[in-house]
Formats: sequence, structure tokens, C-alpha cells
Amino acid sequence: MDIKNIGGEFALIARLSRLVPFDGNEVVVGIGDDAAVLKPQGMSDRYLLVTTDTLVAGSHFKTEWARPDQIGIKSAECNISDIAAMGGRPMTLFVSLVLTRDTSVEWVEEVYRGIAASCRKHGVVIAGGDTTHGSTVTISITALGTVAPDELCLRSHARAGDLLAVTGTLGASAAGLALRLKDQTVSSYLMEQHLAPRCRLDAALKLAPVVNAMIDISDGLASEVNHICNRSRVGARVYADRIPLHPDVVEAGRLLAVDPVEFALNGGEDFELLFTVSPDKQALLDQTGVNYHELGVITDASDERCLVLSEGKEIMLKGGYNHFNETDSI
Amino acid sequence: MDIKNIGGEFALIARLSRLVPFDGNEVVVGIGDDAAVLKPQGMSDRYLLVTTDTLVAGSHFKTEWARPDQIGIKSAECNISDIAAMGGRPMTLFVSLVLTRDTSVEWVEEVYRGIAASCRKHGVVIAGGDTTHGSTVTISITALGTVAPDELCLRSHARAGDLLAVTGTLGASAAGLALRLKDQTVSSYLMEQHLAPRCRLDAALKLAPVVNAMIDISDGLASEVNHICNRSRVGARVYADRIPLHPDVVEAGRLLAVDPVEFALNGGEDFELLFTVSPDKQALLDQTGVNYHELGVITDASDERCLVLSEGKEIMLKGGYNHFNETDSI
Repeated sequence: MDIKNIGGEFALIARLSRLVPFDGNEVVVGIGDDAAVLKPQGMSDRYLLVTTDTLVAGSHFKTEWARPDQIGIKSAECNISDIAAMGGRPMTLFVSLVLTRDTSVEWVEEVYRGIAASCRKHGVVIAGGDTTHGSTVTISITALGTVAPDELCLRSHARAGDLLAVTGTLGASAAGLALRLKDQTVSSYLMEQHLAPRCRLDAALKLAPVVNAMIDISDGLASEVNHICNRSRVGARVYADRIPLHPDVVEAGRLLAVDPVEFALNGGEDFELLFTVSPDKQALLDQTGVNYHELGVITDASDERCLVLSEGKEIMLKGGYNHFNETDSI
Repeated sequence: MDIKNIGGEFALIARLSRLVPFDGNEVVVGIGDDAAVLKPQGMSDRYLLVTTDTLVAGSHFKTEWARPDQIGIKSAECNISDIAAMGGRPMTLFVSLVLTRDTSVEWVEEVYRGIAASCRKHGVVIAGGDTTHGSTVTISITALGTVAPDELCLRSHARAGDLLAVTGTLGASAAGLALRLKDQTVSSYLMEQHLAPRCRLDAALKLAPVVNAMIDISDGLASEVNHICNRSRVGARVYADRIPLHPDVVEAGRLLAVDPVEFALNGGEDFELLFTVSPDKQALLDQTGVNYHELGVITDASDERCLVLSEGKEIMLKGGYNHFNETDSI
């Protein structure tokens, strides 16, 4: 049976997770968040966080577009971002490379220089890995970190009444990709955001003591709002005109004749942080000094996934903005 | 520059490790042993162990030869074996799969059933992973475990005067592969050892409190003896006629007209344990109930890598037995 016939990779993971033992007494949170939360024997006042992400040449990066150091940066940052989104402090990376027979030493060294630049920036070390041969270059990184239990930010921690907010601006990576695919000129800002996005560890460490749920935006805002709602059994109302867009993203929308909000909702790999916070902590939130935009509110209607358009019309906030159409009006 | 021109993958790893930060205060032992040894913030009386291994279709397993459950078993066991060889107790696996567009759901489920069987046997749970698409099926597993500091068995822990010993018998995986490559009949024992080798966690947990250095045999006995000697700055004398061989391995040597000891020295993926132990602990070693064979002795001549043949002749014990020739006599 084809994987796409059962509903794709999320459906496959659900089937696979039924086959395996996953509920040990050292597992606090297993499959289903940005990182696993573990409490290994011998660990008392902090939790261990573990996440793994694999980037395949051709699928996740194009060697014709991206410099090898950018590929290294992206592969490190997307893993460190998952630790950050849990409220954690990253500690070590383990880097597994599959290289082809004609991969040059210089190319691999440049990938490593990119990984090393991210490690130094975020205070992370490389403690191991594996190098092997295959027919497709593949970079698989596992990141470990730790978090204080009271700063752990799970997808399931959102509460009705929470404000829903996001750091930075959204859609740059998707807008850069869309322009590139149409052979349009891409600004250096959009290109850098697409090829070598940076995680917001700095902001995450400041937000963690204050916020409830937190997630990094790797699959687009709509998908991440759904993840928080599903895991927290809450609803959400998001106001389209409050979604922060960089001027270059707005310009990309104009050039490509699409609503630039699409890039934010359905794009991905912005690695900004989406979080919910109790309204009575907004003063504390402001004291963190982290720039954020309030997008909407968490509601107790657990089925509600509402995107309020600027003209007041309400449509359903689906995992993929491409799926929106008139029949989705609510 | 080609990777093979600089000396292959070990040389590449040495070059890469100079480019990256690897010496953090939470890293006890980084790159260079079976697993990394970490002391994360919040962990007091045990160390955390982390190892990662990637298996690529075509290179590390052949889908024409191995059933998917055997591929799952092999990929789990080789990782759990690395934790065992450090004296540790495995805790969790993180499984990253690269699947092709035509990989069937049933095939992936069988791989997972194999991984699950190994997990249940060894008391391990799967706490996360990643599934993505690419042109080559790749299974990358990261295993985590913990160890009591006084039971940690490093490659660098061998001492001059230690006995050198091994669990079980060696060469079965290599003999099975060699027969298969020559289209000879392969006994079910050899085939199982080649396609779905099992790690010796049971033995490792009993040996850890008693032995000094320990390593799992994944690249052949000669290579592993060299790893221990290099990291411990000691020498070794190994007696060829004490290397334990299964009768099917001896028979494979007869059929293929090669010395069956070659399979043990230069083969690989036996996943038996090579260890050194102080002579005054031999009584304690016997009390563990683990079957072992004494192969030789650790010496204080740090350059000594001596294989004593049955006729008394001494040759150099190189990383690869294929490299042996008359000019290597010492």
C-alpha cells in the first residue's frame, strides 16, 4: 500500500507508533511535540530534551541554490529551534552524514563550518555522529538540551483565554522560495531566510518562564496553531490583519499576485516562535524585551479554528492555506 | 578533493572535528568511543550515553536479501550494542527514516516490528523520530542510555597486564556474507547472524562492574583491538588459535578456501564484546556467569599489535587482516 493512500506521513507515524513500545517511566512526553521530554535515571531537577531532524538533498535543500555553509546552518538551526521551542537550553548535537562517492572534502568542511557557526552562536557542542556513503547526501542531526520543569513549554499547555502571539515576522522563507521557483529576483533578506534561517533561541529562553504553550513555526502558522489547539483541546481565533509580514514578503505577494498572508499561513521554516500566554502575564511578557505580535486568542470551543479576515468574514484555519475555499466559510 | 584521497572516512572525521566546538563542560567523553558520555545540567549520579548509527539501503542492508523485520532488528541492535559496550543501560531510541515514493506501508511496518522486537527484548522505548522522503531508504537511529560512573567502560580503560577476552564466537556475519556473495549455501545460523545480529546487552550489564575497557565488535576483531590499544596507549598480544569460531564459520572457511580466522579478524558486525580485565578480577569475572574466551594480554609496549599464529610466528595485527603479508612479520 502506498504511503500517500493512507494519508501521508502523519498517518504513517500514527500507524507506526501503535507497533512500538513508547511509554517508559523515563519518558515524560514522547512522540508528538517539538522534542521528546525525558527524565533519565540519575536526573533530578531538570528534564532532558531530544529532537531529531533529517534533511535530504533535493527535498530539503538544493545544492545548486544553497552554499554548503548555509545547508549546515539550516540543519543545525532547525534542530536547535525544536529545543528552544520547548523552553530548553540546547547542549549537544550529533551529526550523521550520508555522503556520495563524489562529495568533495571541501563541500563537507563548509557544511561543518555552517554547523559550527550555529553551535558557537548558541553555545552548543558537537559530541558525536556518523559518516557513511550512499547515493543521496543526507544530513541527520539529533539535538539534546535540558529544561527546568517549570519552564517546559508544551504544545498542550495552552489555556482558554490565553493570548496567541508570535515573534518576528512570518512568510519570508516561503516567499523567497516562491519567487525563486518563478525565476523572479529575490531580495537578499528573503534568500537568506529561505536558505539559512536562524532559530530564536534568544527569545525562547526569555519567553519560557512566562508563556504557556510554545511551538516553532516550521510548517506554516496555520499548521502550528492547529498543533497547539489539538494537543491542548482548545480553539483559536486568529486575525489575518495582525499577522506580521516583512515588507519584502508583501512585495513578493504583489509580484506573484497572491495574498502575502498565504506565505505566513502555509509557508514554513520561519523558525519564529508561536506562543500562548495568560493575559495576566502580559506585563511580565513585555518585561522580557522580546518583540512579539498578538495574533488572536485561545478559546474554550475545542473545534474552533477560526481565521478572521480583515473584512470581518470568518473562515476555517486549516493546516494548509491552499485548502481554503468558499465552502470552508463558517 | 576526494574523500578517499585524504584517507577515507576516519581521516575526514578527524578534519571535521577540528572545525567544530566539541569540548563543553557537559561532555565527559565526546567523539572517539562507542557512544558519547554526557553529564547534563541536573544529572548527578549517572552519566548520559548517546550514540547514532545510520544504515543506508544498498550499503548496509540489501532489501533483496533481508526481510524488513531483520533490517529493523539490525538497525536497533547496532545502536543498543554501542550503549551496552559502554557498560550502560539503554533507555530510548529515536528513529529517523528516509523513505522513497514507492516504499510500501507494509514494508515500513515490518521494519518497525523488527525495531519493536529489539526494544521489548532490551527494555527500550521509542521516544521520537522523523519520517521524510528521499531517493534512498535510510534508517538513522539515535540511542540514549545511562551508566553509573564506576561502571563506565571506555576504550581508554585498558591497563598493561589486563587479560584480553571476548564473549561468544566471532566471524559468523562475515562468513555468511562471503558465502552469499559467492552464491554458496549459507546455514540459517550464519544468515541470521549476518542479517539480524543481536547485541550482547545481557552480558555487558554483568561485565561492566568487573572489566576495564570494553568495545563491541562492529568492524572486526583486529580493528577493535587497535581501537583499545590506541585509546589506552597500550600494546596487545593476541593468540590466533584462541579466537573462538563457530563450526559453521570453520566450514565456510573450508568451502571458500580461506583461513576462517580472517572472518573474525577482518569481518564485522558480530556485536560480541571485546574487553580487558585485571587478572586479579578473574574470579569475579567467572562469577558473572558470562561465557568468554581469553584471547591474549595487554602489554605496556604501546606500539605492540601482535598476532601470534599457531606455529608461533608473530605478525602485525592490523586494522584489516587483508593487509597482512610476509613483510608485516615482526
